[in-house]
Amino acid sequence: MLTDPATMAPHAEDWRKRYRGKPLAVVFPANPEEVAAVVRLAGECHIGLVPQGGNTGLSGGATPDDSGRQVVLSLQRLRALRAIDPINRTITVEAGMTLAQVQTEAEARGLLFPLSLGAEGSATIGGNLATNAGGTAVLRYGNARELCLGLEVVTAQGEIWSGLRGLRKDNTGYDLRDLFIGSEGTLGIITAAVLKLYPQPAAIMTALARVASPTAALELLQFAQQRAGAMLTGFEYMAAMSTRLVAAHLGAVAKPCLQIIGDTRDGVGPQAADTVLIELSHPESESAAKEALETLLGHAITQGWVEDALVAQSGAQSAAFWRLRESITLAAAADGPHVKHDIALPISSLPAFIAAMDEELEQRYPGIRIINFGHFGDGNLHYNLAPPTLEGNPDTDTRRAHYLEFLGLHEDAIRRAVHDRVMAMQGSISAEHGLGQLRRDEARHYKSAVEISLMVSIKHALDPLGILNPGKVLCLDQSLPGDRS
Amino acid sequence: MLTDPATMAPHAEDWRKRYRGKPLAVVFPANPEEVAAVVRLAGECHIGLVPQGGNTGLSGGATPDDSGRQVVLSLQRLRALRAIDPINRTITVEAGMTLAQVQTEAEARGLLFPLSLGAEGSATIGGNLATNAGGTAVLRYGNARELCLGLEVVTAQGEIWSGLRGLRKDNTGYDLRDLFIGSEGTLGIITAAVLKLYPQPAAIMTALARVASPTAALELLQFAQQRAGAMLTGFEYMAAMSTRLVAAHLGAVAKPCLQIIGDTRDGVGPQAADTVLIELSHPESESAAKEALETLLGHAITQGWVEDALVAQSGAQSAAFWRLRESITLAAAADGPHVKHDIALPISSLPAFIAAMDEELEQRYPGIRIINFGHFGDGNLHYNLAPPTLEGNPDTDTRRAHYLEFLGLHEDAIRRAVHDRVMAMQGSISAEHGLGQLRRDEARHYKSAVEISLMVSIKHALDPLGILNPGKVLCLDQSLPGDRS
Repeated sequence: MLTDPATMAPHAEDWRKRYRGKPLAVVFPANPEEVAAVVRLAGECHIGLVPQGGNTGLSGGATPDDSGRQVVLSLQRLRALRAIDPINRTITVEAGMTLAQVQTEAEARGLLFPLSLGAEGSATIGGNLATNAGGTAVLRYGNARELCLGLEVVTAQGEIWSGLRGLRKDNTGYDLRDLFIGSEGTLGIITAAVLKLYPQPAAIMTALARVASPTAALELLQFAQQRAGAMLTGFEYMAAMSTRLVAAHLGAVAKPCLQIIGDTRDGVGPQAADTVLIELSHPESESAAKEALETLLGHAITQGWVEDALVAQSGAQSAAFWRLRESITLAAAADGPHVKHDIALPISSLPAFIAAMDEELEQRYPGIRIINFGHFGDGNLHYNLAPPTLEGNPDTDTRRAHYLEFLGLHEDAIRRAVHDRVMAMQGSISAEHGLGQLRRDEARHYKSAVEISLMVSIKHALDPLGILNPGKVLCLDQSLPGDRS
Repeated sequence: MLTDPATMAPHAEDWRKRYRGKPLAVVFPANPEEVAAVVRLAGECHIGLVPQGGNTGLSGGATPDDSGRQVVLSLQRLRALRAIDPINRTITVEAGMTLAQVQTEAEARGLLFPLSLGAEGSATIGGNLATNAGGTAVLRYGNARELCLGLEVVTAQGEIWSGLRGLRKDNTGYDLRDLFIGSEGTLGIITAAVLKLYPQPAAIMTALARVASPTAALELLQFAQQRAGAMLTGFEYMAAMSTRLVAAHLGAVAKPCLQIIGDTRDGVGPQAADTVLIELSHPESESAAKEALETLLGHAITQGWVEDALVAQSGAQSAAFWRLRESITLAAAADGPHVKHDIALPISSLPAFIAAMDEELEQRYPGIRIINFGHFGDGNLHYNLAPPTLEGNPDTDTRRAHYLEFLGLHEDAIRRAVHDRVMAMQGSISAEHGLGQLRRDEARHYKSAVEISLMVSIKHALDPLGILNPGKVLCLDQSLPGDRS
């Protein structure tokens, strides 16, 4: 247990340093029984508990408030591999094991745990499940939810629910597993999980394709799904501005991809274009994978959807393509502050959304830079907006001050415009990052009274004292069980 | 609205005629608003409502009790196709649409709705979701749960929750969708759903393979998943006794399969063997599918897992293979009364379970006939037991009386033995048929107090008056929210 503010500091704020709290203490139970004991004590003392895994969340879901009345409950010490069954293709791990370690354990048995995301080296499986993490393999394998067969959870009463079933079919009552998954620690504390493993594909092939437009990207996606079926395991979209920023701030990363993304060495190259990263996993062989990918892209070029494409000739080139995609966030951060979104839409609506949204924002904020990229195949875009650049070549401080001023004036209106359009098109304002603190009130703004009321009823039923991650997902002061209007 | 007992009769009992109730009335609302009005009225009058779709359930979940205080709420008239989006690959349908009709609507757009089960001509999509139906395509596409993206539900307060989202990613609060799915109408009444569609595979190929043992079947499954990945769309197991019954009672159905299942014309043929029906769906072509299946079976024969195999040479032959599998239930019914189970196990445990269970039952009940078949690839067996046959050739009535006597004496002990072993091996006593009335108390017998308590808390929170499908899934008299011991 830590109580010294200095040693507690890393647990008191999120890694992006957007939220900082004042925890009463940070505790490190070693097993589910100790987690249960902490929960019972918290119930007796009416102390809020904030479960924390790798602390890599993007919505402040694992950061305590500044009341000094919340205890951070770290799951770090629960990191045992409880069991692995290569024939049932399941692995049972404790919540504090990192995602990368789960991947490694699977690989060591010739198997694949397909969940994959930027923070996987630090993010824990407990946090992945609590937030129903997405990532780059959702297209084929689903979100964290779809990769979990069973859970062990400490309830708000400090009891241990043992639901560690490794079954593909089980219809014996309410789906408690899926209720806890994605509830961000507000209904129970996940201490262990049974996860699904898959056979390792014989070969994984990637290609980078320059597409004419979001509509062309959608045509390519449709065709690829028709022709490759479940072998299509990745389909990432990068609008021109995203890769242009990588070229400007991380030139070495962009270099191997310039043939496709456009010659953007000066940051404004006229040939800069929208790009798609496509990944195919084949169960048979590398040559079969390559042939399938080349046939597919050949047809797309004939159809005019793709203007130019590069099939990776080696693992290194494939890694270079992925690095381009994964460096966009870093490049945007290097460029300066911007407004982030994590939206989802019906896949069929992506081109119409992008066209209308781009136009609206460009009209209202001339010069605004639209850093639009993401998991196109899942309908999930990180539609981020950076302030217009300044004329001339101002120094860093001047530029930053200008950006901050722009955001101070417009961030709320931009967010409202984006989310309003997303909701009008039956989308989601949080596709894969959860609500935490960041999107809690925004979700409340858009959700129906019926939905909020159902959520509040469930929260009160499972955590009547409100000790589990208070203030996350739901603000209980806003709606009480009687408030069903 | 019906109130006459004669006209209500088809709604008052389940199709297998195991449960019969005395409904106060049967009502047929035409839209979600009318469903909501009925629910509000039921709340005011403290009347129980029993939602009913195609009335094809196997656990009595849609049959009212005999109190005369329950109203059957039929969803039959809610059968509109609300929307179809071939590019997003989603279809939005009302709860009363039959599963077969959903399949047909998808097919008409060149798409596939993969949920597939025997009763699909009458079973409704609302019932499929309420019970989280399984069927023959779970191996590749998942249960009904995995095929649903959004729901519209009438709550116990008679409000309409509009959760008809067609999104692959949405992390904005508790997973209400999955809570309602599989809750058998006890938490809310599903009135419409957004379902996932898939591209039609270019070719579907089936084969019938005689396997040396359940262990050999498991080896074949492992290898097929490794080599065919997501192209493996069916893997059904039929122990010798299952196909022997088809040969005995439905000779014409068995005939095209005799080469594989054994020459069982006299019902006791020594060559009768365990069989696997394997199905491959290929996104490219028929020849590619055939080649993949033949390569796979060739290797399995070399390895000794498969003794003989027949790859279907036509759609008709493929249909004949499936008819064999789907006729087992009918053949067993023609043979006489028997004990049915719907169990699931970790796939790795299937051979050990079958060996130990068969041995235990054969020792305790010499001559007992084990009709073991099912969705082996999902770990789901219909491990059914028929009484020993009589010596000589008794007439039907004598045989039936003998069977019923045996079951009267032993059914409870047999069920306990099977379920005890299933639970000891971390399995499920209801893989795809739900609890309804049939397995409610059995589930209660095995579930932990913590799990029952969580379920009861949720039931009380969402349906405080207990008007939604009372007595199904949970018996509330057995456990109240305070009972957390």
